[in-house]
Amino acid sequence: MANNKKITIAVDAMGGDNAPGEICKGAIEACKKFSDVEIILTGDEFKIQSCLKNFKISPQIRVVHTTEIIQPDEHPALAIRKKKDSSMRVAMEMVRSGEAQGFVSAGSTGAIVAGGVLIVGRLSGIDRPALGVPLPTIERPSFMLDVGATVRCTPNNLLQFALMGNIYSRKILKVQNPEIKLLSNGTENIKGDDTVLGAKELIRKRENLNFQGYIEGNDIVWGRADVIVCDGFNGNIALKMGEGIMQGLKSLLTDEVKQSLMARLGILFMSGVVKKLWTRFNYEKYGGTPLLGVNGAVIKAHGRSKSPAIVSAISAARDFIDEDGAEQISDDIN
Amino acid sequence: MANNKKITIAVDAMGGDNAPGEICKGAIEACKKFSDVEIILTGDEFKIQSCLKNFKISPQIRVVHTTEIIQPDEHPALAIRKKKDSSMRVAMEMVRSGEAQGFVSAGSTGAIVAGGVLIVGRLSGIDRPALGVPLPTIERPSFMLDVGATVRCTPNNLLQFALMGNIYSRKILKVQNPEIKLLSNGTENIKGDDTVLGAKELIRKRENLNFQGYIEGNDIVWGRADVIVCDGFNGNIALKMGEGIMQGLKSLLTDEVKQSLMARLGILFMSGVVKKLWTRFNYEKYGGTPLLGVNGAVIKAHGRSKSPAIVSAISAARDFIDEDGAEQISDDIN
Repeated sequence: MANNKKITIAVDAMGGDNAPGEICKGAIEACKKFSDVEIILTGDEFKIQSCLKNFKISPQIRVVHTTEIIQPDEHPALAIRKKKDSSMRVAMEMVRSGEAQGFVSAGSTGAIVAGGVLIVGRLSGIDRPALGVPLPTIERPSFMLDVGATVRCTPNNLLQFALMGNIYSRKILKVQNPEIKLLSNGTENIKGDDTVLGAKELIRKRENLNFQGYIEGNDIVWGRADVIVCDGFNGNIALKMGEGIMQGLKSLLTDEVKQSLMARLGILFMSGVVKKLWTRFNYEKYGGTPLLGVNGAVIKAHGRSKSPAIVSAISAARDFIDEDGAEQISDDIN
Repeated sequence: MANNKKITIAVDAMGGDNAPGEICKGAIEACKKFSDVEIILTGDEFKIQSCLKNFKISPQIRVVHTTEIIQPDEHPALAIRKKKDSSMRVAMEMVRSGEAQGFVSAGSTGAIVAGGVLIVGRLSGIDRPALGVPLPTIERPSFMLDVGATVRCTPNNLLQFALMGNIYSRKILKVQNPEIKLLSNGTENIKGDDTVLGAKELIRKRENLNFQGYIEGNDIVWGRADVIVCDGFNGNIALKMGEGIMQGLKSLLTDEVKQSLMARLGILFMSGVVKKLWTRFNYEKYGGTPLLGVNGAVIKAHGRSKSPAIVSAISAARDFIDEDGAEQISDDIN
């Protein structure tokens, strides 16, 4: 931290599969780790306090009581508009008013995106926001955006995503001169649909971007780009496909190992390797998913987040605020 | 086989990374397996004959000499139009003339699609062709289409893919009442872009289709549909992502095992399980990728195909011809 200013982050304590327990635990752990962070937990005060009482009271945490919760199956924009006293909306209002500089939630992705636009507000010059995710890959972490904020894009939306991804990669992920690629259905120049082809021309013309053309699906896992630009539909397919395969393999392997003594012995010998690979690809250490293009640090944590993932998300919000992420993007776009 | 009629399949001997050696070997093996199949190998006669001489001469195989080869990096439609004496085009001309009923190639996907439309010809009533791939998954094989023939689709294209996938799943893959799903960025009803939403309404209205709504990326690996409908762009991303992860994991595991004695011991104990999983997910046994919507059995084999994959592709062509696949699709569409 360059100076001694405090960073205030509003955390939606009621969002996600493990709320409020793991959210509160994550907030406590983050306060221990970052002495410059103050956290406002929004949600059911009674439930939050009964989670917090398991830990030593931290003067860095305060609770703001709210009476509503946005559920994952609600229509995102309607829920954000109607549920004025929801834990998510109240936390976002704090970013708009300046009471907090950052927001973290493991709640509904759609509602976070809707709230990012409707409550926190878009940055001037940005047409559509993008959710970016740092992906663990073989060679290096890649930052992929959009993975779900803007379903289909114009070439200009994709150009803006490239610019935002470039800033995030340089400033927050500390990559020098990030290599930017556009997700396409092949690497040859003739590949791509009209939107992707149009975006390729726009991004290529932009100065100060290290644009390296197309990336295809099988190169994502090898980490053959620092920033991968795509629309929210394709980003969702790629990300979910990856998640599904990892879960599927884990489940198959567990079943097989249960059925065979030899395999049980084998997995014992291999536990070092399995643990190493697991740690390498564990998304929890890669922090939250920033919603870029809005006027503040808005970080989504995975719906299944446990406390370490919440700490990572709070850490990502803190870095984004410290680096003036929103201003940096705004300066670069305008 | 219902009767004793012969089935003639034209095989492009020069297409793919392992041509012509593995293609010729696959043709020989297919003839041993299927006594009702006759194969015409198109390509450089000298090279083909020197591959064939390693095996017992089969009266089921004949060679047609061609002087040109379509390379993977050529513009597909231009190459098909210009290279009139290419191994691929000559084999496709045989399907058009009726000299052969089926076509198999491990060559350029783009050229196979272009040739399917320009040389073999579209079925009446079909606007765009689709490449379908039988995917090995956890619960059951799923048939996914399109994976690369039609980059972006209209809702009506996707409806036609659903109808073609339904026929292929029932007739060739022998699935009773196949469950059809549309690939989307989530399973909730509000998900999807305009095209996917439009296709959902069209497919839902169609009688005699067991349509079950959306499937998302992480459900593909579990096999939560018999037929997965998508455009060629998304199909390519999903398929390549899956391939990349499997290759990446294999490479990482190999490296780790090399570095650790314990892991080497472990993998010995686990060899049964690894072999079982490998067999289960080995694409070679799942045969080729049919190009649906054209007037004949056009089967693409993977570019890296070795002889077992060529046998599978020939087997898929034989089944498609035996079941009158093209007529079945034509009847259903019109």
